Amino acid sequence: MSEIAFHFDFGSPNAYLAHRVIPAIEQRIGARFRYVPILLGGVFKATNNRSPAEAFGDIPNKRAFMELETQRFLARHGITDFRRNPFFPVNTLTLMRGAVAAQHEGEFARYVDIVFHHMWSAPKKLDAPDVIRALLEEHGFDAQRLLDRAQSPEVKQELARNTEASVARGTFGSPTFFVGEEMFFGKDQLRDVEEAFLGRGVRAGAG
Amino acid sequence: MSEIAFHFDFGSPNAYLAHRVIPAIEQRIGARFRYVPILLGGVFKATNNRSPAEAFGDIPNKRAFMELETQRFLARHGITDFRRNPFFPVNTLTLMRGAVAAQHEGEFARYVDIVFHHMWSAPKKLDAPDVIRALLEEHGFDAQRLLDRAQSPEVKQELARNTEASVARGTFGSPTFFVGEEMFFGKDQLRDVEEAFLGRGVRAGAG
Repeated sequence: MSEIAFHFDFGSPNAYLAHRVIPAIEQRIGARFRYVPILLGGVFKATNNRSPAEAFGDIPNKRAFMELETQRFLARHGITDFRRNPFFPVNTLTLMRGAVAAQHEGEFARYVDIVFHHMWSAPKKLDAPDVIRALLEEHGFDAQRLLDRAQSPEVKQELARNTEASVARGTFGSPTFFVGEEMFFGKDQLRDVEEAFLGRGVRAGAG
Repeated sequence: MSEIAFHFDFGSPNAYLAHRVIPAIEQRIGARFRYVPILLGGVFKATNNRSPAEAFGDIPNKRAFMELETQRFLARHGITDFRRNPFFPVNTLTLMRGAVAAQHEGEFARYVDIVFHHMWSAPKKLDAPDVIRALLEEHGFDAQRLLDRAQSPEVKQELARNTEASVARGTFGSPTFFVGEEMFFGKDQLRDVEEAFLGRGVRAGAG
């Protein structure tokens, strides 16, 4: 069996929606997704890509269809608490460095879950330092320690390396998944991720 | 059961790939897709959209992934004779008007099949009038009659109306499918089309 990796940034609503359905997939296939923090802004810069909001902002039919796809995904998976974040665009640099710091602190899974929730279900302005600090404290983290660590050269470099390595493997947006060397993109390809992991998917190309 | 409509333009490789797998879907679900000729250039103009080649031309990782998706689709469906058309971009105006004319002549299905094949499996420069004429004659059409009819005001207006009506329903690119009022986009959503037709899909939004 291959490893499944999930390259994510809290700023992506579709990464959040993937995060919400991953537990059910993990239960079905008996394997865990390895979450890899990357900086989506860095991916866009390195690949010359843009967010869907930017790229399709002036194509109303495309925007309406993306919204319909979101509604279908929510209905299919019974997700009733997804909210657009009114503070967007939210710069996620501190949050993503915080994710790497939380890995070092052994609090990664809980950090990811809480930050995603407060970005896309109980949305807050999560690029404001006082808002981040209050959120972490409210949930029992040592906020000072975590945020200090997030600013360490080691953590900064690790997030940058994660991002560069992801782009080198083919990433151009979010959410991106790898099953072994095979890349998949978008929440709607989670079905293909599952099939590929179970060996029922089609292997074509080098991935 | 709802009607399934397939809004297509010969210029779209993904419409061709959909066309190749539709017969197997029709056999599984016991229903026929209604093919609706539209002018993709008209759709792009009306919706402010562009072809993937244009939109993603300068995003190499995105281009590479789209190619990988194509290879996966070909492998999944056992399609071995797909070729990129070296004469692209090919203006499809005459071909699409010809499709409407072929509907009026009662030769639509055969015309669609032959033109798609010679665009994407045995690719030719299908915006050159002499190439179109020779192709139609070779396949036993009354080329003069069909091409004359393709230039009639009635046919020209019908193609324009098809295109406008499609955009009004939400179309922004190709291939686009409608199951009743529910819209689906892209060859990879044919699975959703099939599920929606069989009543297993999720109905969300007005489509």
